[in-house]
Amino acid sequence: MPDPTGNLAAVRHRLRLGCSVAFPGFRTLTPAEEFRAVADWCDANGIDHDQYGQGDLLAAFEGTVAGLLGKQAAAFMPSGVMAQLIALRLWAEVSGAPRFGMPHTAHVALHEEEAYQALFNFHGVPVGDRRRPLLARDLAAVAQPLACLLVELPLREIGGQLPDWDELQALKDLARSRQLPLHMDGARLWESRAYYGRGYAEIAAGFASVYVSLYKGIGGIAGAMLAGDADFIANARLWQRRLGGTLVRQSPMAATAAMRFETRLSQMDACYRRALDLAAGLAGLPGIRLNPAVPQTNMLHIFFDRPAEAVAEARDAIAHTQRCWVAGEIRAADVPGWSVTELYVGDTLLDLDNAHVLPYFARLAGA
Amino acid sequence: MPDPTGNLAAVRHRLRLGCSVAFPGFRTLTPAEEFRAVADWCDANGIDHDQYGQGDLLAAFEGTVAGLLGKQAAAFMPSGVMAQLIALRLWAEVSGAPRFGMPHTAHVALHEEEAYQALFNFHGVPVGDRRRPLLARDLAAVAQPLACLLVELPLREIGGQLPDWDELQALKDLARSRQLPLHMDGARLWESRAYYGRGYAEIAAGFASVYVSLYKGIGGIAGAMLAGDADFIANARLWQRRLGGTLVRQSPMAATAAMRFETRLSQMDACYRRALDLAAGLAGLPGIRLNPAVPQTNMLHIFFDRPAEAVAEARDAIAHTQRCWVAGEIRAADVPGWSVTELYVGDTLLDLDNAHVLPYFARLAGA
Repeated sequence: MPDPTGNLAAVRHRLRLGCSVAFPGFRTLTPAEEFRAVADWCDANGIDHDQYGQGDLLAAFEGTVAGLLGKQAAAFMPSGVMAQLIALRLWAEVSGAPRFGMPHTAHVALHEEEAYQALFNFHGVPVGDRRRPLLARDLAAVAQPLACLLVELPLREIGGQLPDWDELQALKDLARSRQLPLHMDGARLWESRAYYGRGYAEIAAGFASVYVSLYKGIGGIAGAMLAGDADFIANARLWQRRLGGTLVRQSPMAATAAMRFETRLSQMDACYRRALDLAAGLAGLPGIRLNPAVPQTNMLHIFFDRPAEAVAEARDAIAHTQRCWVAGEIRAADVPGWSVTELYVGDTLLDLDNAHVLPYFARLAGA
Repeated sequence: MPDPTGNLAAVRHRLRLGCSVAFPGFRTLTPAEEFRAVADWCDANGIDHDQYGQGDLLAAFEGTVAGLLGKQAAAFMPSGVMAQLIALRLWAEVSGAPRFGMPHTAHVALHEEEAYQALFNFHGVPVGDRRRPLLARDLAAVAQPLACLLVELPLREIGGQLPDWDELQALKDLARSRQLPLHMDGARLWESRAYYGRGYAEIAAGFASVYVSLYKGIGGIAGAMLAGDADFIANARLWQRRLGGTLVRQSPMAATAAMRFETRLSQMDACYRRALDLAAGLAGLPGIRLNPAVPQTNMLHIFFDRPAEAVAEARDAIAHTQRCWVAGEIRAADVPGWSVTELYVGDTLLDLDNAHVLPYFARLAGA
């Protein structure tokens, strides 16, 4: 890429690849390592390729996810973008209203090239306050007919915040009384069990459809699942085909997710506890604020009282000298001179205690 | 699957997997073998995962395909369905007409759940005669405004037929004189070079956009490319994102296609010659007709004067006793009592001469 920004991004990408440890997220494999691991797993489990989504691996994995979410059925999808577009489309057809409610910071609103508008002429109504989770009183304030309400659990753009359990139940109750289908953007739902102390099916109860990611927390190469009633999912598969999302084979995405699925889910509670511990330590550093102050999932947003480029340069300097990648993307915050980064606490940080990691964050903050 | 049809399909799928040789297509690997092969290739070529389609492997492969097709740019897409929907959408936006021309047997008309209608409210106008390639005189007969004309080279549903070179040039000339963009469904374009005796860029010249498959002839796990002018492809990438087709990583699809790309292309001419030789032999068998009588690519349709189920049972019996899979799907033809199967001549048949294979086809025909 010829532009300076592109060059800088490429330089930083190589810098990160050259690090022996990266604080954010779970440890990752190179493509070659990944393909060898999944080859072994396919051998051990007698995996065949699916054909246009039909096959034993996919059927079993879809059944596992549907069961875990307490839904009748689930369909593998190549992306969350597609899964949610399809859910919005189906609920719009049920209700006849080309309109849905969503958080101000919904992924469909911010990161999908306005797909729901461009493709379907839908009207997305921002509901609630963009700095906190969506609540029953926010829905109560909506006077216009909605096909469904998209609820993001947890809310990524505000550091993985969740409504309290009672608040979530109140929202579900109001939606039910209005006969309004709830759709869950559960891209990071797997990360929410520890806070609620409840199973995924109980969290997802009352949601008519649920999208979950297979790559963010789970670590598959790509992919998502959409879960709901059997009829809904059968119809979703038609739309998946229409959108060009039924690949001739989904095996690489499905197998790399399935081979880690149970292990990753079993690590989430520990990652959450580590996030709590880390946040307690970070809170003591000058020039740092956290959102939320007490994490509700194993992710949080770290704000620095320092411009983004200065923080990024500090991170790069650490990467150069110590082959340690402390933080991912660092961007300007709303407050001039402040910046913010998202930290997903995965297995790397499970093995590194605060005494080891806090000094790195202090350096990012300019100490 | 509980229904008898499903059971039969599953039984036949296992039967095919149990065969040591399959006449149709190129030799395939199990998922485990495939993933090991691509792991080695990634190691040897220093491959990193792309991030949402950005990465060295993808950029280089897209450049290779664009160059081969004589276009400014190309974009990897997860499926041909998506690639063609996007092309139709972009040409409709350019022209303002929500209408395009296509062959009667276009993939978009037959195999995509009416996606162009359901998603975009487009009107697809069948042009020409469904039993032969689309010609300039067919386009000349179209009086209504079209956003583009979709031309399928070769035409899969009639056994891989191609227009003659002069016919193709006449079609290109008429389209240019009408300022009508031509879009190529080149799902099997790689298979057409031998017949024309010309390079891909020369065949694709005059087409404003070209879709090619990365899995059919090439053997990648899945995927396609859409090629055209740089602006067109940049816009196509936006629509790919909107349709949910920009996976977080495309590496498995891209790498498994890229690692075979040159080898497969280099085999196509030999496969075409083998198809000619095989067709000459098949023509001598009673109860068999071919479409086309003389293949124009390394595929053909074989018609049997025998009901589909009888032919399928003969195939299954051979598979049981000799672990040889002679033919893929066998379906009823228009003529009562006749059936048809598609045969793609890949590397398997390169190594098996007519003396060996013709008796198997004779058995399918009831000899």
